Amino acid sequence: MKEERFFYDPLVSGELPQEEAHHAVKVLRLQTGDEIWLMDGSGTFYRATITATTGHRCSYRIEETLPQERAWEGHIHLAMAPTKLMDRVEWFAEKATEIGFDELSFLDCQFSERRVVKEERIDKILISAMKQSHKAWKPLLNCSTRSSQFKNGMIRFKDFICQEREGDKFICHCYNQEDIEEGGEKSLLMDVLRCSVPTTVLIGPEGDFSIEEVRLALKNGYRSVSLGRSRLRTETAALVTVHMMQLINQKKVV
Amino acid sequence: MKEERFFYDPLVSGELPQEEAHHAVKVLRLQTGDEIWLMDGSGTFYRATITATTGHRCSYRIEETLPQERAWEGHIHLAMAPTKLMDRVEWFAEKATEIGFDELSFLDCQFSERRVVKEERIDKILISAMKQSHKAWKPLLNCSTRSSQFKNGMIRFKDFICQEREGDKFICHCYNQEDIEEGGEKSLLMDVLRCSVPTTVLIGPEGDFSIEEVRLALKNGYRSVSLGRSRLRTETAALVTVHMMQLINQKKVV
Repeated sequence: MKEERFFYDPLVSGELPQEEAHHAVKVLRLQTGDEIWLMDGSGTFYRATITATTGHRCSYRIEETLPQERAWEGHIHLAMAPTKLMDRVEWFAEKATEIGFDELSFLDCQFSERRVVKEERIDKILISAMKQSHKAWKPLLNCSTRSSQFKNGMIRFKDFICQEREGDKFICHCYNQEDIEEGGEKSLLMDVLRCSVPTTVLIGPEGDFSIEEVRLALKNGYRSVSLGRSRLRTETAALVTVHMMQLINQKKVV
Repeated sequence: MKEERFFYDPLVSGELPQEEAHHAVKVLRLQTGDEIWLMDGSGTFYRATITATTGHRCSYRIEETLPQERAWEGHIHLAMAPTKLMDRVEWFAEKATEIGFDELSFLDCQFSERRVVKEERIDKILISAMKQSHKAWKPLLNCSTRSSQFKNGMIRFKDFICQEREGDKFICHCYNQEDIEEGGEKSLLMDVLRCSVPTTVLIGPEGDFSIEEVRLALKNGYRSVSLGRSRLRTETAALVTVHMMQLINQKKVV
C-alpha cells in the first residue's frame, strides 16, 4: 500500500474531497483505473478504483470495504492549554495521532499565554497524521463548530471541568498536594490509569494551572496526578500522557 | 530559580564557557553580584555569584555545591538511524532529554537516507534541553571525538552491534519473526524491559532495517521487539522507546 495513495473522505461519497482530489490528480497525477485507499475516519478503510479525473475532481468506485478493529481500549481524551508557540502544539497533535488517542480539547486557563487556536490547521494535522500512520479513526477535535462553549478553538477551563464527563478524570499539576489543601492524595498518573475506562487528563500552560483552577477541578471530581520527576514542557507533558494512556489501553499485539 | 539563569559549565572553572558567558552578559545583561546556577552535566548543580563581567567573559564564585541523586535507575541508551529531515532528529533529541535518557548513538544503516549528522548541533540541543528541564546529567552523545568508528556523527550498523555492550539489547523492527527465520520470539518492548538493567534499543530508518541487519543483530545477542500496533515515524518510535525505558526505570516520586 503506497502511503501517498491514502485519502481521507468522511462521506465516502464516490468523489474525493477537493483538497484530496487536487493531491491525487495534480500532485500524484493518478489516473482512471489507478487503485487508491480511502479512510472515513470512523473506523473503515476502503479499497477503491479511480473512475474519472476531471480538472481538480476525482471520482472513484469502492471495490472493498474493510472495517477495522479498534487498536486500543477505552477512550483517550487529552485536554491541554495550548503552548505560546503554536508549532509545539502542532507537533503534539501529529505525534499524539501517530501514537493513538481519541479526543483533543484546548483549554483557556488563567495563565495561558495563547488565546487563539486555528482549528482548521490542527484538524489538517490530525488528518495527515492519521493518513500517514494508517489509522482508521480520526481523533475528535472539540471546536467551535461542535460546541458554542468553544471560542477561538478553546474552551474556558471552568466551563470544561463543569461539563458532564464519563470515566476517570485527572489534572496534572506541579503543586504539592498540601498547597491545595483538599482533594486527597496526588498519585503518579501511570499508577492510577485503568485499562478500558474512558479517561480525561488535563495539562496546564507553561505557567501551570493556578491553585484556584486545581481546587476547582478537584471539587468537580478530578484527581491530582504527577507525571514523575522530570520537568517537562507543556507539549511534552501532553505527549507522554497520551503515551501512558495508550500503553495502559493497548491490545497486546506484537 | 529563573530558568534563564541556568548555565552549563562542564569544567566549573570559575569562568563561564564562551557561549554561556555571551548569553549571560550580552543577552541577559547579568552583572557582578547576580546569582546564577551552574550544571556540570555530570550530576551536580552549583549556586554561584557573578564576580566580574568583562566584554564577552563572565567569571563567578561557587557559593554552594549541590550533588543530585539520579532520577532513574539503569542506563537508557537509544541508538537510531537519523531521519531524512534533520529537524525530526533534533526534535527527538530535545524531547528525549526532557523525559530523561543517558546515551544517544546514530546508526548508518542499509536503508538510511541520511549519511551525516551535525554532532555540534545535536550536542547544543542536548545542552539547552538539559538546562531547560533542570537536569544535572547531560546525555552522552557518541560521536567522532569519542570513537574513531564514528564518521559524520554516525557509526555503521555492523560496527555498532559488534561492540561489547553491557545489559539488555533490543532491536525494533516491523518484520514478522517468521521472515527472520531465527532468533526466537518477538516481544512487546514494554513487556521485556527490566528496571535497573542497562538497556540499548535500536530504532531503524524510515525504510526499517534490512532483514540482513536484523539477523546480524540477533546473532549478536539483540532480541526482536515491537512497540505495539501503531505505525510510528522513526523519531516517534525513538521517543516512545525512551519513554518506556524511563517509565520502567523511574523512581516512584510523585
